[in-house]
Amino acid sequence: MLSFESDYTTGAHEQILRRLLETNLDPQPGYGSDSYCESARQKIRQACACPEADIFFLTGGTQTNALVISSLLQQHEGVLAAETGHISTHEAGAIEASGHKVLTLPHHSGKVDAADVEQFCTRFYQDETCSHMVPPGMVYISHPTEYGTLYSKAELEALSRVCKKFELPLFMDGARLGYGLAGMGADVTLPDIAALCDVFYIGGTKVGALCGEAVVFTRGNMPKHFLTLVKRRGALLAKGRLLGVQFDTLFTDGLYEQLGRHAIAMAKRLIEIFRSRGYRFYLESPTNQQFIILENTILERLREYVRFSFWEALDSSHTVVRFAVSWSTTSQDLDQLEAILDA
Amino acid sequence: MLSFESDYTTGAHEQILRRLLETNLDPQPGYGSDSYCESARQKIRQACACPEADIFFLTGGTQTNALVISSLLQQHEGVLAAETGHISTHEAGAIEASGHKVLTLPHHSGKVDAADVEQFCTRFYQDETCSHMVPPGMVYISHPTEYGTLYSKAELEALSRVCKKFELPLFMDGARLGYGLAGMGADVTLPDIAALCDVFYIGGTKVGALCGEAVVFTRGNMPKHFLTLVKRRGALLAKGRLLGVQFDTLFTDGLYEQLGRHAIAMAKRLIEIFRSRGYRFYLESPTNQQFIILENTILERLREYVRFSFWEALDSSHTVVRFAVSWSTTSQDLDQLEAILDA
Amino acid sequence: MLSFESDYTTGAHEQILRRLLETNLDPQPGYGSDSYCESARQKIRQACACPEADIFFLTGGTQTNALVISSLLQQHEGVLAAETGHISTHEAGAIEASGHKVLTLPHHSGKVDAADVEQFCTRFYQDETCSHMVPPGMVYISHPTEYGTLYSKAELEALSRVCKKFELPLFMDGARLGYGLAGMGADVTLPDIAALCDVFYIGGTKVGALCGEAVVFTRGNMPKHFLTLVKRRGALLAKGRLLGVQFDTLFTDGLYEQLGRHAIAMAKRLIEIFRSRGYRFYLESPTNQQFIILENTILERLREYVRFSFWEALDSSHTVVRFAVSWSTTSQDLDQLEAILDA
Amino acid sequence: MLSFESDYTTGAHEQILRRLLETNLDPQPGYGSDSYCESARQKIRQACACPEADIFFLTGGTQTNALVISSLLQQHEGVLAAETGHISTHEAGAIEASGHKVLTLPHHSGKVDAADVEQFCTRFYQDETCSHMVPPGMVYISHPTEYGTLYSKAELEALSRVCKKFELPLFMDGARLGYGLAGMGADVTLPDIAALCDVFYIGGTKVGALCGEAVVFTRGNMPKHFLTLVKRRGALLAKGRLLGVQFDTLFTDGLYEQLGRHAIAMAKRLIEIFRSRGYRFYLESPTNQQFIILENTILERLREYVRFSFWEALDSSHTVVRFAVSWSTTSQDLDQLEAILDA
Repeated sequence: MLSFESDYTTGAHEQILRRLLETNLDPQPGYGSDSYCESARQKIRQACACPEADIFFLTGGTQTNALVISSLLQQHEGVLAAETGHISTHEAGAIEASGHKVLTLPHHSGKVDAADVEQFCTRFYQDETCSHMVPPGMVYISHPTEYGTLYSKAELEALSRVCKKFELPLFMDGARLGYGLAGMGADVTLPDIAALCDVFYIGGTKVGALCGEAVVFTRGNMPKHFLTLVKRRGALLAKGRLLGVQFDTLFTDGLYEQLGRHAIAMAKRLIEIFRSRGYRFYLESPTNQQFIILENTILERLREYVRFSFWEALDSSHTVVRFAVSWSTTSQDLDQLEAILDA
Repeated sequence: MLSFESDYTTGAHEQILRRLLETNLDPQPGYGSDSYCESARQKIRQACACPEADIFFLTGGTQTNALVISSLLQQHEGVLAAETGHISTHEAGAIEASGHKVLTLPHHSGKVDAADVEQFCTRFYQDETCSHMVPPGMVYISHPTEYGTLYSKAELEALSRVCKKFELPLFMDGARLGYGLAGMGADVTLPDIAALCDVFYIGGTKVGALCGEAVVFTRGNMPKHFLTLVKRRGALLAKGRLLGVQFDTLFTDGLYEQLGRHAIAMAKRLIEIFRSRGYRFYLESPTNQQFIILENTILERLREYVRFSFWEALDSSHTVVRFAVSWSTTSQDLDQLEAILDA
Repeated sequence: MLSFESDYTTGAHEQILRRLLETNLDPQPGYGSDSYCESARQKIRQACACPEADIFFLTGGTQTNALVISSLLQQHEGVLAAETGHISTHEAGAIEASGHKVLTLPHHSGKVDAADVEQFCTRFYQDETCSHMVPPGMVYISHPTEYGTLYSKAELEALSRVCKKFELPLFMDGARLGYGLAGMGADVTLPDIAALCDVFYIGGTKVGALCGEAVVFTRGNMPKHFLTLVKRRGALLAKGRLLGVQFDTLFTDGLYEQLGRHAIAMAKRLIEIFRSRGYRFYLESPTNQQFIILENTILERLREYVRFSFWEALDSSHTVVRFAVSWSTTSQDLDQLEAILDA
Repeated sequence: MLSFESDYTTGAHEQILRRLLETNLDPQPGYGSDSYCESARQKIRQACACPEADIFFLTGGTQTNALVISSLLQQHEGVLAAETGHISTHEAGAIEASGHKVLTLPHHSGKVDAADVEQFCTRFYQDETCSHMVPPGMVYISHPTEYGTLYSKAELEALSRVCKKFELPLFMDGARLGYGLAGMGADVTLPDIAALCDVFYIGGTKVGALCGEAVVFTRGNMPKHFLTLVKRRGALLAKGRLLGVQFDTLFTDGLYEQLGRHAIAMAKRLIEIFRSRGYRFYLESPTNQQFIILENTILERLREYVRFSFWEALDSSHTVVRFAVSWSTTSQDLDQLEAILDA
């Protein structure tokens, strides 16, 4: 069945699998100390224009969020995030499981506003009872957000400023970063992110890899014993080469950017397909996730031919659904979608 | 350089990589609900002669140990393990990080003795102050152990009996299970393990896979919300297919057993190579890890040509080292080793 | 200086101190197994008309909330609470520190509405992605609330019904329960609470004791190993008699109720003092905490003569402050307050 | 019944109760910011000859151990302790509950030997796999130990030296410190302890108080947010005055030392009573806990007249039992004991 259900329905870009085959029997030390990881780290430092970056490869997004947040926070601190942030809603309480509160802020199409951070922190420290409360210890944002939206460079600079003012590390969840960098109207580059965030991760799982996220600590701020913390969580891959080979391939000859551009081209055509047929969008997303308002009768009919995600009920007769394209979406997929819509 | 450093220095068996390529663009739902995982679960149930088994695929051993133990224990309980058990020594405190004490027992060449479990439990409940102590809540064993040794069927039956008596789930860490099933003199089969253990895992990472462990709950005892617990720990792979395809391949046409047998054949030759040259062994290991006593001067010379692991200092002039063979060790590797020893 | 700062500024009711002296040298076993604890438990069972209740004495409110919640929740579950609930705001993340998320609901003058619980749970289980989310595992309410307000019997019955429907234990934080039972217009009795809640606690610290809260499990639902869980948290008092003697005294000859009635009489006069002088109240509180709106110039002047708590800024020239009376507030204190206001 | 069961069977020294009565209605701010706590802190600083000490009052020993250890360790570190240490055995896993492993060392009559710490640390950092292991992050000792034994000044200096060498804070559990300071042959003073330990606590619960332990951070090393950490654990007493008044009394006119001396005088007579009648001791304890070897038939007879603690079975016909005296033991109690033994 035709699938726009998510951006992780297929395997990996073919070059990755080919490279895994080529390197398969080369004996390498474990736990990320292999030469492929080292090469990938060098290429990512270069792509980020951040030669001093510490880079660690992990397997998935929730794991990465929980590890980064719990290793950078002091034990009594919480993490500020949009109420719609992935860590607030869809990580099964992984942050709380490591002992930390997610301090929620209102979202603006999925984004955190610098002014809201400022207000939260100002009020917090004015409160006489604040020693009985959970102090903010870092700021979590996702880019693209859970709604597919993007921070502008100006918005990111404002967040960075307020974070510096209150000495809060700024952490960007880049599970879909490839689609953000290539997003429609995007003005934020990898070097911008490395300059403005204290730590971020480059998502592989949703952008062409079988699995894998590359955490980038941009200021020599990787905790000294990070490997031990990763092991302690059960997140240290014995065959770190699996992650090294994948990221080395993604950051060779611009493959990561190319996969992002391809997905955004597919997203543009998807928007055009729906828009030209009079469908409404829940919000304007410049990236690979599109939120479309469907009449419930139409939704039921479409479901027989194509997979997509339920997002939320809009009213008694309309539903917001998500169509996701990805690095592996083809023109033929979109041709099929058109045919289904016109049937 | 020639490497006997560990059993995770190479990638995956070629059939696994080929199968990943073949299935690569087939769209599948995420998080382990794909058809490859389902097929792999069926094949494993069959191999275990345990049709009612619940099977969950995870990425690595420490992750698996921590998840199984923390989801089966009550919050105040501890886990009994040999003082040499992997969870006692080399998991960076992952069990304690989830709030549980590892209650250590003396080891017998790496193994836990049923009589020691019985004595521990009996004394525990006789102690007037036991409500101020950590009660045993399950028993952890590894098979093969960290010393490469194996439980006999009789030993496993004795453990199972004492566990039943004290209502303790028996959990087997099978990170190297393939090498245990094929071990020299082994009399324990997969169906035996499924019959005698409450939960165990079949190691993939060290036996031919890129990554992956298959947890088998043998008594309908997988916690109801296990998927949520896995997600909460950041251990849920979005592309569960990566694990499904690998285990489906390993359990097709007996590949898993075949890889085990190959490694044991290599181990026999390795033993013969060392023994015939007068080297002493620290203990008799029937599996793929061999512990050899080297004079320190010889150790230094060998190190220039071949990688192996330091185990422990035996005395001021001798060291115990570990040579590990695996599914990917070749006869040429052993020829080279002979040449080096004879040089 | 005159103090209406809180309801824990003085020591204990004199009868409690006298009884501590009388019983001081009587040797008793530790950890709550003394005869005073046993006697107190019997008297509380009787006062609650709940002969099967399990009762455990703890030292303070946050400790009690964290212990009750973490011992009744499954590890992946969260606790529903008003966004203004004490566990949501002023317990320094104690719930998250034990691994659980506080799932916040809108508050209605500090109270949780049964309809909000129903809606939350219904939507939760309708969500396709709910296995990646934190499921509600119990409902926390405070009575009186942090705003001094009270549940009516009808409201409590409605909450109890929806909790039963979704199999959620209903937990009442009674840090100020004495003031709630005697509250103006209160129609909820101790037996009502025991009948409608699965677990609640009777606050001692704020109602006449030096320290101490009596947790009442009303349905034979005290976790089997609760004492071990209390010890594990470092909350088990060696000299449990300190708590036993205090609660035994509070539940002898109706002292606990009497202290509540006294405080409410003082609260009525406090209200009258402010109201008759034209001061406005932020909300109508029927209990010992009163929330008064002060012009900032008046606030500054009053501060020189009397202690009270800042609550929140209302607008640029007005502030909400809290005046708390208690079991130890005297008519003379209120005479002095009148004099200060009229100076 | 005559009781030598423990040192917490009675209430508090009468002066403490009198002082609680005298100060009872004096309004004071909460959470340890009252004037009694401040006064007690000053007196303790003086008694320790440590003017820069940070002092925090807590309620009980396990709570104190867990808070101090979890607030000084980094999250991946463990605490070194004797295998017989209270945190290793009788705190229901409180240390593990906060995520940390207790790394056990052999005990020498309950004591940790500096040479064992040195060896552990040296071997740890020599191990190639140590990044997969739990590194030692502090050293825990108890003084008196669980066997009533005491460190000599020389032993404490040796421990302090090795701790400095490996940058490990040295933490002394002084639950029974009063009995240690006055112990037979003791050569360690409060100022010695303050000079040699990074943090220690002065036990109140077992030495004349209703409850309470005074934690002394000797090097300006109290964590900046310690109050918030205490609140987060539910260990912050609203009426901190209860602890302040008690310690202020204990450290006025040498009461704490006096209680210690009294108990040791009682211990000497207890030893004499048993020794002169030919009873054997399990070990030589210079403090208030005495470990006596009883024939089981005698044990059964004594049990009818006097309470004491079972310690361990020595052989099939003998048992080690503990008799504890305390600040409240009287000469009459010992007269009665003699009568019972001679009956």
